[in-house]
Amino acid sequence: MSTEEAEEADTENAATENHEFDPLKTEIMRATYRALITQGYSDLTMQGIADEFAKSKSLLYYHYDGKADLLAEFLEFALHRFETEIAVEEDDPAEQLRTLVDRLVPEELEEDSYHVQIALLELRSEAPHEDLFRDQYTAVDERITAVISGILRRGVETGTFTDIDPETEAELLVSLLIGARTRRLTTYEEFDVRETRRALETYLDRLPSTEDGTTVGGAEPARDGMTIDEAGSTEDDDGPERPDH
Amino acid sequence: MSTEEAEEADTENAATENHEFDPLKTEIMRATYRALITQGYSDLTMQGIADEFAKSKSLLYYHYDGKADLLAEFLEFALHRFETEIAVEEDDPAEQLRTLVDRLVPEELEEDSYHVQIALLELRSEAPHEDLFRDQYTAVDERITAVISGILRRGVETGTFTDIDPETEAELLVSLLIGARTRRLTTYEEFDVRETRRALETYLDRLPSTEDGTTVGGAEPARDGMTIDEAGSTEDDDGPERPDH
Repeated sequence: MSTEEAEEADTENAATENHEFDPLKTEIMRATYRALITQGYSDLTMQGIADEFAKSKSLLYYHYDGKADLLAEFLEFALHRFETEIAVEEDDPAEQLRTLVDRLVPEELEEDSYHVQIALLELRSEAPHEDLFRDQYTAVDERITAVISGILRRGVETGTFTDIDPETEAELLVSLLIGARTRRLTTYEEFDVRETRRALETYLDRLPSTEDGTTVGGAEPARDGMTIDEAGSTEDDDGPERPDH
Repeated sequence: MSTEEAEEADTENAATENHEFDPLKTEIMRATYRALITQGYSDLTMQGIADEFAKSKSLLYYHYDGKADLLAEFLEFALHRFETEIAVEEDDPAEQLRTLVDRLVPEELEEDSYHVQIALLELRSEAPHEDLFRDQYTAVDERITAVISGILRRGVETGTFTDIDPETEAELLVSLLIGARTRRLTTYEEFDVRETRRALETYLDRLPSTEDGTTVGGAEPARDGMTIDEAGSTEDDDGPERPDH
């Protein structure tokens, strides 16, 4: 990679668009996304992915050694899409955190997101047995932590936050978000998303801030985090139920 | 159940000791525990559990419809053991919370606990597809939340904590703990348990308290949470690696 290219890749959007994913691989990743929605992780096969893929199945095997290899790249793909998702535009660090939390634990969870998130959770629970996944999830957790600690660090620099250790705080927030998302997926109807969102607000409110006591801005309309919107949904998805929640 | 029995079952230890688990079922649960350690969740079969069980395999089928049914009861068994684990003796609510956090995210994780926790995470990730597991995990999360909000409520009553909503705070803490445990299991070597424990301390320190600024007591020696000590370990466990962390 030339210095120029490296610089370009350094800007967040460019990184997401360019990173290793040529059009063919992007097509494969989208087929994987659709296959995960319709078939779930446990039942997923290379054939199942091929069924969602317009081109020849042999192309899948040409590029990937097998399901684990392909899914590891899918995690990387998802991570990059995710980084676009959470590249919040706001300037104000406190507001940026609020938007991030709102995107990761939205009030309503769309059905497609729900299915992909379940598949991702299953992949995560496979991580102890599968090095490829573990490496990817380590990268995922590190990236999210870096994004959050970056926001917090900027908040300390600009004087929005006082007396916090950005790294420690980021660690806390990442566990909190992953825990909330995991609970939501696994207890579903019983999960009180409003109470959890209130709890997350409480946490943010309690971050030592120069504007203590004031809530910095309201949350914007809910969006689903960790989705891959561009991948599109399947035409007629009458797969497993459990819609918005 | 007579009123007397109901009252007795109401005290925490009694509930754990008596709850539905007669000696035979306890033996089956211990066999399941050992099978989960040696075989993991994905490869687990009724035969695998039978192999760890001194009595006849037909007894397993007499008591359980199949693997899912047996594992659902195992989750209930684990929950009750877990409640004994977290029945902290301290009187002081702040100290009680610290001990609880310390037990759930101990500095070192013993190998057996690690394997059982991985199996439990896999079961959790199956919850979206398996009603029996979802019901149990809902109960698990509700129970932990109730224990924590109970401690917090007592803290408010005794004046240890001020200006907190025990329910909201418990919600936050449960997500935080589940998230930290999940990340630890799935990224393993890369997971910085010390930083996470510092983060948890920070959270506890920041709970509005009448003794603001002071750390209430030190953490006691680390123990593994969510273990089933009495189940004992297998004699020669040279199964999957990944020891203390």
